[in-house]
Amino acid sequence: MRQNTPLEVLIERFSALPGIGRKTAARLAYHILDMDKGEAMALGQAIIAAKEKIGLCRECFNLTDTNPCPVCASSDRDHKLICVVEKPQDVAAIERMRSYKGIYHVLHGALSPLNGIGPNDIRLKELLTRLSGQEEVIMATNPNVEGEATAMYAAKLLKPLGVKVTRIASGIPIGGDMGLSDEVTLSRAIENRREI
Amino acid sequence: MRQNTPLEVLIERFSALPGIGRKTAARLAYHILDMDKGEAMALGQAIIAAKEKIGLCRECFNLTDTNPCPVCASSDRDHKLICVVEKPQDVAAIERMRSYKGIYHVLHGALSPLNGIGPNDIRLKELLTRLSGQEEVIMATNPNVEGEATAMYAAKLLKPLGVKVTRIASGIPIGGDMGLSDEVTLSRAIENRREI
Repeated sequence: MRQNTPLEVLIERFSALPGIGRKTAARLAYHILDMDKGEAMALGQAIIAAKEKIGLCRECFNLTDTNPCPVCASSDRDHKLICVVEKPQDVAAIERMRSYKGIYHVLHGALSPLNGIGPNDIRLKELLTRLSGQEEVIMATNPNVEGEATAMYAAKLLKPLGVKVTRIASGIPIGGDMGLSDEVTLSRAIENRREI
Repeated sequence: MRQNTPLEVLIERFSALPGIGRKTAARLAYHILDMDKGEAMALGQAIIAAKEKIGLCRECFNLTDTNPCPVCASSDRDHKLICVVEKPQDVAAIERMRSYKGIYHVLHGALSPLNGIGPNDIRLKELLTRLSGQEEVIMATNPNVEGEATAMYAAKLLKPLGVKVTRIASGIPIGGDMGLSDEVTLSRAIENRREI
């Protein structure tokens, strides 16, 4: 049989996606051939449209199809408060809470000397240059080695500019179990205890 | 925030696929935004091309982008031997063996009175009308209740036409374990024993 039929091409393309093996890719491809034509075309077009229309916000570097993004453009948001995160997915997670009223800054990574990622490889300079009288910058990078290092490094750069820099709390997750927590989380939870 | 951004649409479309939940859909969507643009466009276009170009072979009803399909059009294949399967995926599985030299017929289903699927709901009539002096029809429907019923029903229709009808063997899979086999498979394996 010929190679590279449209079906083979589709299976190949699917199996290049993360977490999708050859068998899942084949299952998805056959499912698409079985789908209502309009639905299948809409999926193909959604991929193309997302890639064509979505870029980075010129202010906060979040993913957006308008520029600046709806958060940066909104006068309902508190522009004196910036929450700094590593990835666009982190913005989406915070937005799902529906209670944060400030704006964002997406670094697109975290400092990681071991992996050769330094301050110039993430959007840190852009954070410094966009500051204009903000009251507080919340460092919401991940509570791991790279995220902590990034938060500390950013704080050292930001504090001389007269802005308050804070760090998200780490501790036992709500609904979590003391006995099943790892030692680092547990010691952090005790260290950061608060009077009640 | 606005609803239905291109990113939201893409996540929705992905989560409509089988076995892909909301979280996996989001992971795939963000991955696509992170991908090389050419690669992402190629995936979108592969979906559209598959849907636009692939139809059913007018002879065997397998999925194909040429008509008749390469197997039906090939003079290297033995057109006196037809292997009847339930799904296009079954043809792909047999082709991977690279040893079957006959042609195929895809029923697109199996008889299932409980689910209201009768002889007119699968491509059974088409199997009868395409017969032209074949020597053998191999019923390779699945070895379960529906597949067995379909094989028996088809055999009853085909035999009066003077064609030999055979059924694929059932038994312990190669590499399988006697002690871990289910009773039905085991009794079938003993029933169908052969002299060595």
